[in-house]
Amino acid sequence: MTYCVAMCLDAGLVFLSDSRTNAGVDHVGTFRKMNVFETPGDRMMVLMTAGNLSITQSVRQIIAEHTTAAGINIWNASSVFEATQVVGEAIRMVHERDASTLNQFGIDFNVSMIFGGQIKGERPRLFQIYSAGNFIESHNETPYFQIGESKYGKPIIDRIVSSETPLDQAAKCALVSMDSTLRSNISVGLPLDLLIYEANSLAVTRFVTISENNEYFQMIRSTWGKQLKTIFESIDDPVWNSAPDSVPHDLSGTEQNSQPLRIPPPTHFGVDAPSTPAPLQTLAQDDGGEQQQ
Amino acid sequence: MTYCVAMCLDAGLVFLSDSRTNAGVDHVGTFRKMNVFETPGDRMMVLMTAGNLSITQSVRQIIAEHTTAAGINIWNASSVFEATQVVGEAIRMVHERDASTLNQFGIDFNVSMIFGGQIKGERPRLFQIYSAGNFIESHNETPYFQIGESKYGKPIIDRIVSSETPLDQAAKCALVSMDSTLRSNISVGLPLDLLIYEANSLAVTRFVTISENNEYFQMIRSTWGKQLKTIFESIDDPVWNSAPDSVPHDLSGTEQNSQPLRIPPPTHFGVDAPSTPAPLQTLAQDDGGEQQQ
Repeated sequence: MTYCVAMCLDAGLVFLSDSRTNAGVDHVGTFRKMNVFETPGDRMMVLMTAGNLSITQSVRQIIAEHTTAAGINIWNASSVFEATQVVGEAIRMVHERDASTLNQFGIDFNVSMIFGGQIKGERPRLFQIYSAGNFIESHNETPYFQIGESKYGKPIIDRIVSSETPLDQAAKCALVSMDSTLRSNISVGLPLDLLIYEANSLAVTRFVTISENNEYFQMIRSTWGKQLKTIFESIDDPVWNSAPDSVPHDLSGTEQNSQPLRIPPPTHFGVDAPSTPAPLQTLAQDDGGEQQQ
Repeated sequence: MTYCVAMCLDAGLVFLSDSRTNAGVDHVGTFRKMNVFETPGDRMMVLMTAGNLSITQSVRQIIAEHTTAAGINIWNASSVFEATQVVGEAIRMVHERDASTLNQFGIDFNVSMIFGGQIKGERPRLFQIYSAGNFIESHNETPYFQIGESKYGKPIIDRIVSSETPLDQAAKCALVSMDSTLRSNISVGLPLDLLIYEANSLAVTRFVTISENNEYFQMIRSTWGKQLKTIFESIDDPVWNSAPDSVPHDLSGTEQNSQPLRIPPPTHFGVDAPSTPAPLQTLAQDDGGEQQQ
């Protein structure tokens, strides 16, 4: 599997990809999933890919070389939108060539891609492209896209990133998101490729390949985990059956009489299940007038 | 969809479930997914379900009423392992009744369940049961199971929970895990059912249904989000191209010469792409002897 994330912010673009591939757990490899198409001063575009590696590699090659019937290729496209159409067309070409044969072997034609960058005269733009070659563009409300194993690392991005987020802070968030994914899913692995593009620079501005030895990523991994534990411990444990005065956050709260959904035994079983369940610890106890809220 | 999580700890068991169901986004409902089978003093077992609601409801009913050929039912089983076999058999009975017809309508027979509890004479035990009625048991190295939309909330559990975790702290972790899931996936929704079972009590000890008004959950939601932002901001942003003395955590680290994977244009395109890329900001700059590490 794969985890890639990209963000389109007011200040520019952030791209982060892992490099693990597998064809079964006994066939795990390392392939870089971030590809740069760049003519400095004119255009800088990044493609990140997830899905069947034989498909994504073919697509990548075709993107670099293909010119559409309208005469557009990735090197002369006047907008990232036009260039994204070239990417979509490349996916469709590989689909036409391979899909039916793959299908005979029970393999779905399955790819997803993130493509973004800037072409002179335009703002930076970011697209997500599907297996059918269709695509969507990011916007201010949703300034990021993820492909592959996206769920583990989504909550932290949802909490932190907006289009106003500065580039380095967004990169840090992408790395925290990647760390959560790496911890919970072995199909995602190091090294990582991190590319930060400052708007209007029209060339790759900051790039690093992050291996296990990378000091900054090591710091993030250990600090984040430790700090999470610290704040987790700083939050009060739930308190049950307490007087409202003594406890600010009573778990039982306003649901004084909540009961679990009990499934009774059929009567002919003759099992002694209580028809009126005993009061639970979450219920307010009448202790002389003092009521739990 | 669904998110349910259960933990089997030295101190007892924790169960947490959401209550959202949907048959398409225009058909969203609230059904409780946590069911309790209890004869106080003798046994307390909890079933949480995910998957097709028509299947899980039938399974639940059959579990309460079915006796196997060997004379075992959920009310007389001598171990949670035996009771789990009744659950598996119930799933297989519904499969036999419904699967082929569902299949004709293009609907997969898709359920997953968490089942656990304690029967007098045994320790508390926790099982995860699949669509085929087969199951696995938790153990010390992996003391928890999740069903449904499990990925968003997995990282925090992986970081916090071990079998030594106290019950209330584990419940707090389950609620944080649920909060992350609720924020990132609208197919999971309130109210929640939270049940905490203290080992050897052989009855439901603590239970609460948590709605939007629950004060403790409100506190978790707001505090956790705020604290996450605080610790996120307390971690240094990456620094590029700095002198090693001034910066403790330089992102470029030891990968001084890393370059992105650039895809060049074909030569016949006549595009002016650089054969030797310009030095990136991540590279060490020779500024008179002071070298970046």
